Amino acid sequence: MRNFTFYSPTFFAFGKDTEKDAGKYVRRFGGTKVLIHYGGGSVVRSGLLDRVKASLEEEGLPYVVLGGVKPNPRSGLVYEGIDLCRKEGVDFVLAVGGGSTIDSSKAIAAGTVYDGDFWDFYSGKLITEALPVGTILTIAAAGSEGSPDSVITNENGMFKRGATGDAIRPKFSILNPALTQTLPPYQTACGVTDIMAHLYERYLTNTRDVEVTDRLIEALLLTMIHEGPRVIENPDDYEARANIMWAGMMAHNNSCGVGRTQDWNSHNIEHELSAEYDCAHGAGLAVTMPAVFTYVMEHDVMRFAKAAVRVWGCQMDFDHPEKTAKAGIEAFRSFLISLGMPKNFAELGAREEDIPNLVRALCYGNGRKGSISGFVTLNEEDCAKIYKMMV
Amino acid sequence: MRNFTFYSPTFFAFGKDTEKDAGKYVRRFGGTKVLIHYGGGSVVRSGLLDRVKASLEEEGLPYVVLGGVKPNPRSGLVYEGIDLCRKEGVDFVLAVGGGSTIDSSKAIAAGTVYDGDFWDFYSGKLITEALPVGTILTIAAAGSEGSPDSVITNENGMFKRGATGDAIRPKFSILNPALTQTLPPYQTACGVTDIMAHLYERYLTNTRDVEVTDRLIEALLLTMIHEGPRVIENPDDYEARANIMWAGMMAHNNSCGVGRTQDWNSHNIEHELSAEYDCAHGAGLAVTMPAVFTYVMEHDVMRFAKAAVRVWGCQMDFDHPEKTAKAGIEAFRSFLISLGMPKNFAELGAREEDIPNLVRALCYGNGRKGSISGFVTLNEEDCAKIYKMMV
Repeated sequence: MRNFTFYSPTFFAFGKDTEKDAGKYVRRFGGTKVLIHYGGGSVVRSGLLDRVKASLEEEGLPYVVLGGVKPNPRSGLVYEGIDLCRKEGVDFVLAVGGGSTIDSSKAIAAGTVYDGDFWDFYSGKLITEALPVGTILTIAAAGSEGSPDSVITNENGMFKRGATGDAIRPKFSILNPALTQTLPPYQTACGVTDIMAHLYERYLTNTRDVEVTDRLIEALLLTMIHEGPRVIENPDDYEARANIMWAGMMAHNNSCGVGRTQDWNSHNIEHELSAEYDCAHGAGLAVTMPAVFTYVMEHDVMRFAKAAVRVWGCQMDFDHPEKTAKAGIEAFRSFLISLGMPKNFAELGAREEDIPNLVRALCYGNGRKGSISGFVTLNEEDCAKIYKMMV
Repeated sequence: MRNFTFYSPTFFAFGKDTEKDAGKYVRRFGGTKVLIHYGGGSVVRSGLLDRVKASLEEEGLPYVVLGGVKPNPRSGLVYEGIDLCRKEGVDFVLAVGGGSTIDSSKAIAAGTVYDGDFWDFYSGKLITEALPVGTILTIAAAGSEGSPDSVITNENGMFKRGATGDAIRPKFSILNPALTQTLPPYQTACGVTDIMAHLYERYLTNTRDVEVTDRLIEALLLTMIHEGPRVIENPDDYEARANIMWAGMMAHNNSCGVGRTQDWNSHNIEHELSAEYDCAHGAGLAVTMPAVFTYVMEHDVMRFAKAAVRVWGCQMDFDHPEKTAKAGIEAFRSFLISLGMPKNFAELGAREEDIPNLVRALCYGNGRKGSISGFVTLNEEDCAKIYKMMV
C-alpha cells in the first residue's frame, strides 16, 4: 500500500425531510449571506427551492439566487455567479441539485475569493481558499457532495477540465433519497453508471496487495448491481434510492481508493464525448468503459478475472483466466444496457468521422503530450482504436 | 434506511515514517503546548517516543509527558492527566499508543476543560467540548483513532463505561502500519478480533434493506479473514498490517454502520469480563461472540445465513437455512481459535462461579433495569445462559 492522506470532513445529514434543516446547517458552518445555486425547472417545480428558501428565512439568513446550471456546467455561468457573490457580499454558496450544480457552486466559491481568473484552477492550480459550500443533493451520481473536485466545461472551445482542493469540499451535504424519486429512469441509470465508473476507475490499479480497498470497491459495485435494477423497475423505491445515494458518496470520497494508483482513463476518454456532443456523462461512460476495459484487459488479466468472479458472479476458468476476465466485462456491458444505457456511438449521438478530432483533443488538450496515463498509458493510436470499438 | 447524520472530520496520515510529521500536524491543528500520553515500555523501547519528541521540538512545540496507560485504561490516570494539563497549560493531547491510550487521552482532553468530575461524561453526559486530540496509532484494533468514543474503567468498583461526543474525535491520526509490526501475535490477534467485533455489532441489525452497509461490513470482514492469518504467520508483513490498519479505522468510523440499528450486546457482555479479570478486550470478545450469536441466531436466521454465505463461503442450505447460519458462526469460532484466541472461560481466566455477579453487574450497572438491549433484548436469565455457554 502506498502512503496517503485522507481527509473527508463533510457533515452529512441523510434521510427524509432533511432539507428542512438547510438554514440551520448554513448557520452552523458560518454562513450569513447565501447564494442558492441551482439548475433547471425541477428544483422549482417540485417545490424544493421554496422549501430551501423557507428554511433560510426561518434562520433569518438573507440570500440571492442563481439558476440555470446545465449538465456539463459552463464557465459562463460561473463568471456570472462570481460577480453576483462579490456584488452581494455572499459568504456561503448553497448548491441545490446534482453534480453539475455542485461543481458550478464549487467553482463560484473558489473564484469569488480569488484575484485572478477562476479558470486558473481548472488549468492545474490547487484550490486553497474558497467560500464555504453546502449541498442539497437531488441526483446520486457524481459524488461531488463529498469530494474536493469540480469539473467545468469552458465555453471558449467546449472542453472539460477538473479542479481540486480541500477548500471546496462541502461543509455539509444534505442527502434525502426521496428527492431523487422524481428523476426519470434515464438520468437515474446515468447516475448508477457514473457511480460504478468511480468504482472501476479505482479498482483498476497497479498497486499490489490492497485487499481492503479492493473489497470495499467490490462491495459498492455489488450494491449497485442489487439496487440499480430495483430503482429502474420502481422509481419510487425509497430504500433502493437510499442505498444508491450512500454508495454514491462512499464511491467518490476516496475512502475506497486510498493507498493505490487509480485509472481515470475512461473518464478522460468520455470527457471529450460529453464536451463535444453534450451527452450525459453517465451515458458516455456506459459506452466508453466496456471498450476501454476490453482494450486494456491484457495488462492485468487476473484483476479483471477477480472483478468477474467477485462482483459479477462468474465462475473462474482456471485454465483460461482471460475468458473469465472477458466474461466479467461483458456482464458489465449487459448490465448497463439492461438499465437503458446506450451501447455505441450512434445511440450516444457521436460520429465516427469525428474520431481524429476527439483523439487530438484528448491526447494534446490539458497540457498532454500525445497520450493519457492511468492503469495503462494510451497513445493516440490506442485512443483511436478505443473510440472505434465504441462505434 | 433510517435517517442519520455522519461526520468524520479526522485527518489521516497513513504509511511509512508518517510519525515524523507529528509536530507539523499538532501545529496545523492549533496546538502550542502538548501532553504526550502513552502506555508501557514498548513506545519507549522502540524509540518511537523519542522520534515524536524530536518532531515536536523541530516545530518548537513544548510538551509534557504522561506514561503508564494500562489496557482497560483507568480513571486514576485520567485524573492525574487532567491535573497535569491544567497545571502546565496544555492545549493539545497527543496519544501515542493503542485504543487504551487514545481513550485515556480523550478522557483527559474532555476533563481538562470541564468544571465538574470527568466521570459525568462516562455516566451519560455528551462531550461537547475538549482539548484537541491527535493520535499516533500503534495497535490496529479499537478504531478509537477515527471515532468519537472512549471507554474507561472506574477503579472505584472496576467497571467499564463509555463516553461519546464529536469534540473528542481526533483532529488527526497518524497510521504507520510498520509501528504495529513489533506487536506480539496474541495482541495482534486480539486486535483482529476487536475489529471483526465492531463489524459484527453493526451487521446484527433489525433494519431491513440496507444492502450498502451490509456489503461494506462484509467487505471488511473478508479483508480480516484474508489478512489475519497472514499477519499471524509473518508479523513483519507490512502489506497485511496496512490492510488491517485501514480496515480497523473503516470498521469503526461508522461509515459502514449508518442508517441501521446496531447490536453491541457482545461488547456489553464482554466489558464485564475485562473489567473483572483484566483480560484483553479482544480475547474476551473471541469467547463472547460465538456464544451470543448462537444464542440469538433464531431471532433472524437469514441474517446469519447471509454472513455465512457471503463472508464465510458456506454453501446455502435452502431447505435448512439454520444449518447454514450455524455453520457461519462455527466458521467464525474456528477462525478466532486459529488466530490463537481463547475459546472459553478457562482460557480467559474467568470463573463459572462468578456468573451471578457478572450478570448482576451487566444487567443492573450503568443505569440498566435488569436487561441489555440491542439486536435482541437479553434479560438476566438470557445473560446467565450465554455466560454458561462460554464455560
